[in-house]
Amino acid sequence: MSIEVKNITKHYGKTCALNNVSLTFADNKIYGLLGRNGAGKSTLLNIISNRIFADSGTISIDGMPALENDAAIGRLYAMGEKTYYPESMRIKEVFKWTKLFYPQFDDAFARSLAEQFGLKLNKKIKSLSTGYLTIFKLVVALSVNTPYILLDEPVLGLDANNRDLFYRILLEKYSNNPFTIIISTHLIEEVANLIEDVVIIKEGQIICSEAREQLLANSYSVAGSAIAVDAYTAGKKLLGCEMLTGLKTAYIMGQPDCVTAGELEFAKIDLQKLFIQLTNA
Amino acid sequence: MSIEVKNITKHYGKTCALNNVSLTFADNKIYGLLGRNGAGKSTLLNIISNRIFADSGTISIDGMPALENDAAIGRLYAMGEKTYYPESMRIKEVFKWTKLFYPQFDDAFARSLAEQFGLKLNKKIKSLSTGYLTIFKLVVALSVNTPYILLDEPVLGLDANNRDLFYRILLEKYSNNPFTIIISTHLIEEVANLIEDVVIIKEGQIICSEAREQLLANSYSVAGSAIAVDAYTAGKKLLGCEMLTGLKTAYIMGQPDCVTAGELEFAKIDLQKLFIQLTNA
Repeated sequence: MSIEVKNITKHYGKTCALNNVSLTFADNKIYGLLGRNGAGKSTLLNIISNRIFADSGTISIDGMPALENDAAIGRLYAMGEKTYYPESMRIKEVFKWTKLFYPQFDDAFARSLAEQFGLKLNKKIKSLSTGYLTIFKLVVALSVNTPYILLDEPVLGLDANNRDLFYRILLEKYSNNPFTIIISTHLIEEVANLIEDVVIIKEGQIICSEAREQLLANSYSVAGSAIAVDAYTAGKKLLGCEMLTGLKTAYIMGQPDCVTAGELEFAKIDLQKLFIQLTNA
Repeated sequence: MSIEVKNITKHYGKTCALNNVSLTFADNKIYGLLGRNGAGKSTLLNIISNRIFADSGTISIDGMPALENDAAIGRLYAMGEKTYYPESMRIKEVFKWTKLFYPQFDDAFARSLAEQFGLKLNKKIKSLSTGYLTIFKLVVALSVNTPYILLDEPVLGLDANNRDLFYRILLEKYSNNPFTIIISTHLIEEVANLIEDVVIIKEGQIICSEAREQLLANSYSVAGSAIAVDAYTAGKKLLGCEMLTGLKTAYIMGQPDCVTAGELEFAKIDLQKLFIQLTNA
């Protein structure tokens, strides 16, 4: 059981948004899909969910080809940038309508979430603020109960309390009954402890797809005088460097070389910093 | 020279979005307009910029009434949730068009910003991703050179590198030639050092409007055993409490009472935490 992305390529005019992308999203896992603005995250999620079409390549969901295949596409729900409901529809009408297309949609759960977030069921979609539009989309996504949920920027415009509430609800739901969640977000620190696997996309190509723990265990930073750091990093897989008031910090892939410690200071890199080093160059 | 908000009230149906709001935005200052989702931030900014109309109350800009007064409204530029340009317009056409309405619009600066952010001038507005739509709006807002700039969620959907780039450009522009900036954002930690004055809005009312330094200097936290903390906080202006593995932390307005330190640990509160305490209850 998985989503298989095979050799997907997509151009917008002359711009190559995705370049021969292949990867697998296994079942019952929480993925972080990370990338800079314009890297191709939303394009990938929109192709997986049949909202736009690839130039070439295939998507399969639990072994079924996804292209215009309702049985396959019905196994996932994608919360995206756009709202696909009529603007003048009220929230409670959306709930009814969604239940028609997703029979597992849990109306009672959706109503309890709406109450927790302070989302009023009588509101029309067009009257929602940026934050509440996101909350509305989240409430639906968290209630459809499909095996795969794709969340493109799930905390866009949410205040800190509501972001916390969302993370807590997501984890609780996942702990009770695991499913696959793909989260694309720019607030990496906030999801760093939530995600199990990290997929990093850069300029339309996957540059990393592995367990978060493994990725973090295979990178470190070393700080000290520029001379000592440069001597240490020679021949190592250097991601990047920073200079701050005479102190040089280098970010390196691999394991620290304990023999040559001396005046050098070794440290772990957090996911946000590692992401910046991997995508900056 | 200032924006004066006087007794502004606004309802949406039965919901009171702003309840008799009065405040002043002085010239050449950076303001943080903070509030939870649905607190009324965007409504206030939209009323100041004449995009929606108050039920009662007045706005004046540099002494001139703002209501349908081009001379007054021309002194400010509001970057908001909505895009007011035709969707099929290209970025470079927006630049030309903006110059007609804002003669101080700096086309060369806008083009250099677009290049720094990787925004392509030939792109149509409708083809922009969430992040690039924000970048596009920011580039225009940073180039119009009006005395007042209102930024409603200026980093919505921006990656960490682009957020940093925006903060740096804003500060550099402000340092070279001060103007008034009102920033409404949910990423409070990131702007905490940028803003000079803090305006906090809660359920349509201003609950705080003062210099950031003063606000932070007049609040603190105290941690220790529940018994010791409760004894200490008795009679003080308590904002809220947290319990974590036996340790109680209380957030208090005022100055620490040094005489009764004992086993208690005092600390400063950062702006994000203070905001949560002030708006949570």
